[in-house]
Amino acid sequence: MERIIGKYYIETPYPLEKAAAVLAGEQSSGTFVAVPGETEELKERFAARVEKITPLDSVDTPAIPGASAKPGAKYHRANIEVSWSIENFGYNLPVLVSTLQGNLYEITQFTGLKLMDIELPASYGEHFIGPRFGITGSKKSAGVTGRPMIGTIIKPSIGLTPQVTAALVKTLAEAGIDFVKDDELQSSAANSKFEDRVDAIMRVINTHADKTGKKVMYAFNLSGEVDDMLRRYEYLVKAGATCAMVSINSVGLSGTKKVCDQGQLVIHGHRNGWGMLNRHPLLGIEFPAYQKLWRLAGVDQLHVNGIQNKFWESDDSVVRSIEACLKPLFTGETPLPVVSSGQWGGQAFETWQRTHTTDLLYMAGGGIMAHPDGPTGGVVALQQAWEGAVKGLTLAQATQQYPEFAKSVEKFGGR
Amino acid sequence: MERIIGKYYIETPYPLEKAAAVLAGEQSSGTFVAVPGETEELKERFAARVEKITPLDSVDTPAIPGASAKPGAKYHRANIEVSWSIENFGYNLPVLVSTLQGNLYEITQFTGLKLMDIELPASYGEHFIGPRFGITGSKKSAGVTGRPMIGTIIKPSIGLTPQVTAALVKTLAEAGIDFVKDDELQSSAANSKFEDRVDAIMRVINTHADKTGKKVMYAFNLSGEVDDMLRRYEYLVKAGATCAMVSINSVGLSGTKKVCDQGQLVIHGHRNGWGMLNRHPLLGIEFPAYQKLWRLAGVDQLHVNGIQNKFWESDDSVVRSIEACLKPLFTGETPLPVVSSGQWGGQAFETWQRTHTTDLLYMAGGGIMAHPDGPTGGVVALQQAWEGAVKGLTLAQATQQYPEFAKSVEKFGGR
Repeated sequence: MERIIGKYYIETPYPLEKAAAVLAGEQSSGTFVAVPGETEELKERFAARVEKITPLDSVDTPAIPGASAKPGAKYHRANIEVSWSIENFGYNLPVLVSTLQGNLYEITQFTGLKLMDIELPASYGEHFIGPRFGITGSKKSAGVTGRPMIGTIIKPSIGLTPQVTAALVKTLAEAGIDFVKDDELQSSAANSKFEDRVDAIMRVINTHADKTGKKVMYAFNLSGEVDDMLRRYEYLVKAGATCAMVSINSVGLSGTKKVCDQGQLVIHGHRNGWGMLNRHPLLGIEFPAYQKLWRLAGVDQLHVNGIQNKFWESDDSVVRSIEACLKPLFTGETPLPVVSSGQWGGQAFETWQRTHTTDLLYMAGGGIMAHPDGPTGGVVALQQAWEGAVKGLTLAQATQQYPEFAKSVEKFGGR
Repeated sequence: MERIIGKYYIETPYPLEKAAAVLAGEQSSGTFVAVPGETEELKERFAARVEKITPLDSVDTPAIPGASAKPGAKYHRANIEVSWSIENFGYNLPVLVSTLQGNLYEITQFTGLKLMDIELPASYGEHFIGPRFGITGSKKSAGVTGRPMIGTIIKPSIGLTPQVTAALVKTLAEAGIDFVKDDELQSSAANSKFEDRVDAIMRVINTHADKTGKKVMYAFNLSGEVDDMLRRYEYLVKAGATCAMVSINSVGLSGTKKVCDQGQLVIHGHRNGWGMLNRHPLLGIEFPAYQKLWRLAGVDQLHVNGIQNKFWESDDSVVRSIEACLKPLFTGETPLPVVSSGQWGGQAFETWQRTHTTDLLYMAGGGIMAHPDGPTGGVVALQQAWEGAVKGLTLAQATQQYPEFAKSVEKFGGR
């Protein structure tokens, strides 16, 4: 029978075998005494199983509150692998999550516990369609080949009217942008109702597409209650939109999957709230595990932060996240990594050197909108940066070669 | 215009005013340079506002990774309050969450950030129905007055057949139990299909109700995809069930609200995964804030852990959580706090002394199922414990007075 494996990074003052056994017990039998009906046969079939324990270092101070070590004793770190039969939950994603990420974070025997990765069985690839569009569908829809999709976020995040937003989109479309998105704070605001914004923006995008053949992808922030999302989804389809954005953590797994299952729009998965789940090195979940769950749900584009971002995340972590998205999961489409946060083009060189892929949605906010030549200059500068990066130019060489990019370097390069 | 206030506990190496301003900026304008269109009028209407900063202590070591203090400098802690106009998001819960708990956890200027509480404006009380049943509806449905509802979890968590489960439920019903639930690991397993389990259990519960007039509340674990949940919800209603359980973190806010909005079943909100969101003192969210979001979604019963629980959480935190649930939010129903984890009756005394409420669902797993006289003895012992606690007896006095409870003390009291 197929099994699912959860790979955890743990810390405990207990012997590793004992702590791992507590985890497996909590996540399959879960009470403090033997109970009637728990036969050996039942345990063999349904109990979690500790598959592997790889001891790492020991430390003097616990990472998070939990059981105390005896005086002079240490807190032991390890990688452990625990498996469950798919007979326990079948293809039910929320129950899978409760199994992999449920009460185990409460176990006092651990002073650190992070889900690092998940191994999914082959039948999951048959059951779950995964991203309907992913990299292939996103780039095809926006008519992009041989380079990353270039995108921007409408800023200020919130407060612009549909008319002003649409005028910005027009400027960006004419500048050759591939992708524009709502900010995650903006869905339907007092002065920018969702439907009004769709009307104003899609008029611009459809007109531009009729004229040029290129349809700019706009990710309208659909996040909301299930019925509202479905109603607005239909509205988007009728308006000729190609993409919708979902704040995946805020909406949750079931609501997001319901939206993805409609299958007509590219789903842009915004991971705001991610820091809460990941920022501590020994609590929560790492991106390689996280992205698999959202791929199963069917998300087509997934945020991964960016090199030299304005947030706390390290460049190494960003590179690992891009690699995780690009690694095939079963045979289906692969989600498009969305690179963003403080990006202005200067980071294109290191991003390329460390990932050697153009299968990215490369997002710049201020880096486009605040370019000295205006948004038009911003879009051109980003395209130049990527052209230069892929050619193997250094940032300095690209600055020599591309005048718009040179202006970006002058304005943003000193940050 | 009404505003929503987020109350945060923060840590930063920067001056507090500066760090708070970064948070407010990120959560309303959010890029690193001024952009066209961001007028003063727009800022006044839509920008986040720092309302209050209360400095606390300073420390030498950062709580979580982020910006470093200068050599010899400190990390400053504070309580801060930030507000947003409801014009930004209206009554959209996921966008509210993205505003209160979105990218702000990524801000490098913070070395700690936890959402402690939320102040909601009056119109939220008109827009959101909240729990349809809550304390009143739960107790009425199960026919309980003047004492906590007594409940248990079917253990082993997973692996029993519907027939064995139903036989256990029969024993428990005859023993006078008020509430039984699936474990969160169990929804539809290979040897216990959801519908088969419903059939077997509701046959027992309905028969018992016909005979005695008391309908035991069984929380079937509905957690799953939206369509599956709705289909199974209907199945439960038709079978005469009164309650469904949702693993709220795993299903997410939109899916959970959709289930609550059906309005025919009490929704038992299981918070497995909570440790990931709360266990670190300076990362994530505290229960007073968390429970408000799920009350808005309409959850009727909410897990709060228990006194002397088997997990890491302190008794003080458990008491605060019970108080948070019981505190009225607007005029609607109040969610029933679900006390569980390592409970066997001995904790009834301190639970009563510290909360002075019987508006609880008091859950024991092993404490009931592994009682020396069997589950029947376990249920009686718990009722006795609460009767004694409310009478003002000490544990020792209750042990003298109640023989079944005395056996619990003998078996579980030495843990």
